[in-house]
Amino acid sequence: MGNIILTGDRPTGNLHLGHYIGSLKNRVKLQNEGNYDKMYIMIADAQALTDNFDNPKKIQDNLYNVMLDYLSVGLDPNKVTFFIQSQVSELTELTFYYMNLVTLSRLQRNPTVKNEIRQKSFNESIPTGFLCYPISQTADITAFKANVIPVGNDQLPMIEQANEIVNTFNRIYGETLIKCEGYLEKNEIAQRLPGLDGNAKMSKSLNNGIFLSDSSEEVYKKVMSMYTDENHIRIDDPGKVEGNMVFTYLDVFSTDDQIKKYSDFNSLDDMKKKYQEGGLGDVKIKKILYSILEELLTPIREKRKYYENNMDVVKDILKKGTIQARKEAQKTLEEVKRSIGINYFE
Amino acid sequence: MGNIILTGDRPTGNLHLGHYIGSLKNRVKLQNEGNYDKMYIMIADAQALTDNFDNPKKIQDNLYNVMLDYLSVGLDPNKVTFFIQSQVSELTELTFYYMNLVTLSRLQRNPTVKNEIRQKSFNESIPTGFLCYPISQTADITAFKANVIPVGNDQLPMIEQANEIVNTFNRIYGETLIKCEGYLEKNEIAQRLPGLDGNAKMSKSLNNGIFLSDSSEEVYKKVMSMYTDENHIRIDDPGKVEGNMVFTYLDVFSTDDQIKKYSDFNSLDDMKKKYQEGGLGDVKIKKILYSILEELLTPIREKRKYYENNMDVVKDILKKGTIQARKEAQKTLEEVKRSIGINYFE
Repeated sequence: MGNIILTGDRPTGNLHLGHYIGSLKNRVKLQNEGNYDKMYIMIADAQALTDNFDNPKKIQDNLYNVMLDYLSVGLDPNKVTFFIQSQVSELTELTFYYMNLVTLSRLQRNPTVKNEIRQKSFNESIPTGFLCYPISQTADITAFKANVIPVGNDQLPMIEQANEIVNTFNRIYGETLIKCEGYLEKNEIAQRLPGLDGNAKMSKSLNNGIFLSDSSEEVYKKVMSMYTDENHIRIDDPGKVEGNMVFTYLDVFSTDDQIKKYSDFNSLDDMKKKYQEGGLGDVKIKKILYSILEELLTPIREKRKYYENNMDVVKDILKKGTIQARKEAQKTLEEVKRSIGINYFE
Repeated sequence: MGNIILTGDRPTGNLHLGHYIGSLKNRVKLQNEGNYDKMYIMIADAQALTDNFDNPKKIQDNLYNVMLDYLSVGLDPNKVTFFIQSQVSELTELTFYYMNLVTLSRLQRNPTVKNEIRQKSFNESIPTGFLCYPISQTADITAFKANVIPVGNDQLPMIEQANEIVNTFNRIYGETLIKCEGYLEKNEIAQRLPGLDGNAKMSKSLNNGIFLSDSSEEVYKKVMSMYTDENHIRIDDPGKVEGNMVFTYLDVFSTDDQIKKYSDFNSLDDMKKKYQEGGLGDVKIKKILYSILEELLTPIREKRKYYENNMDVVKDILKKGTIQARKEAQKTLEEVKRSIGINYFE
């Protein structure tokens, strides 16, 4: 069997540079390498509802935003099947039967969920749906027989949980489900790009991100506001490179060719050296970063514009993808129900 | 709106006299009174799997047994829609979204579930599906807009849980779901018929029950083995009526007309008096009970025989009922998804 890739996002906000460098870029690479039989990208609206159930409008509003982000970075509907989780009913049915195979205490031990529960300060009022989302993720993965799951480090416990359910299911009901592997991004910093303000994580709620949908002017303003080195007051002062967001971003986003193109330096290392010695101003380095980001964002912005003007096409891609995905999920669900023995009318 | 009745059983064993007197008889009465728009009876195989997930064969084996029990007591497919829970996929999808509206601690506080967890000695390894079955029951009830739910006293917390979910759903997403009421059996003893051995509950696992499918010979043997009064050794000894299973069953199953017909007494009270004074033997009272039970069980047994010889008819009733039920559940699910706002392709 070849590779089946499944990945996706909760539609809770526009995607930003952190998403781009942490996952989207990687997905485009995977897509273009072509080393797979199928590649699915799921808009996880049902999962997003597990902790946004009282604000469904937020999910609805962001569904097409996320899809526009996907298309604008170059994910290609001819190579990828895009679908909306809530429109593949079979996923909820798989979740239902998998729930019998996971104990409550096992769910409560899941480190990712534990961490999120702390972050969201649910305290005693954890929605059952939220606690169960690792089971729902297992349904998503197994429904498509996906075996390659691009994830961040923090999501490895989800892969573990999925494989546990697969093992238990196959042991009790006979070989039916396929195990999966997490496919990790190598670049540590790319996995969790810090915010413009130096905060550990770029996020919409902290308002410290550059979004793929930001205009050129917005990007300029944001880059100019970036946190550098608070002791680098005059141009001639020596400056710090570590913890300086402009250099952190240049590390992630620039090539030496670009540095040469937009500055008088031969490489990022040369540029850093100069900054550390003194004599290189923040405005200058920010303008270099801005130009390099613009080189990345301009084609993304243009593609987005095209699709924004052709929302029918976008809707159609999602609709067709969802129909396709549903067909696959239906097949798996039938196999699952046959294995359990609840296929009385077949 | 008129009444919509929903009830059902987990197919974990043949139904016995306890089921008959506690619920089946009542259902036949409800059915024949006709005070409803629709009456559904669900074979809750998916729910049965929540604590029998490692023994699905038990559920499959009992599915048709339970259906034969239904038909043999006079439940009428022309008046009642019979369906199999696991074949109405929409129920699992409703469960999925309701799970967001119930906190884990609320589930853990449910007295019925708490009690069952104790009985089944799950300890720390409660299957998540089992813990969530009150949510799944809410899906069953609301899917059919059922407002009259025949239940035992011990199931009232389930009705409460269902109405809580209905209230929360309607508050967040707008008026969509219908509240329900538990319809209680009046007769206390009938709600929980003791076993032949005097044990608090008639149950298959305790092997202390008379099943609707038992042969005449089996019933005779079982009645002869019933617990009476261990101090009532000689016929002339005075006997105790309280805690004497034969009299407990006569209280539940006999009329004075039947007592007259099968004995020299004018009423059950007269018969009790004689037993208490001494001079009435256990074999005699057991034979009376046997005759009265046979009057009940003979036509049930005959109907069962007919359907056993016509399993195609039985299968067809279930299939047609399930298709009908599914149509209703589909309608509700559409309304639910529209209310949440996850109806993007409509």
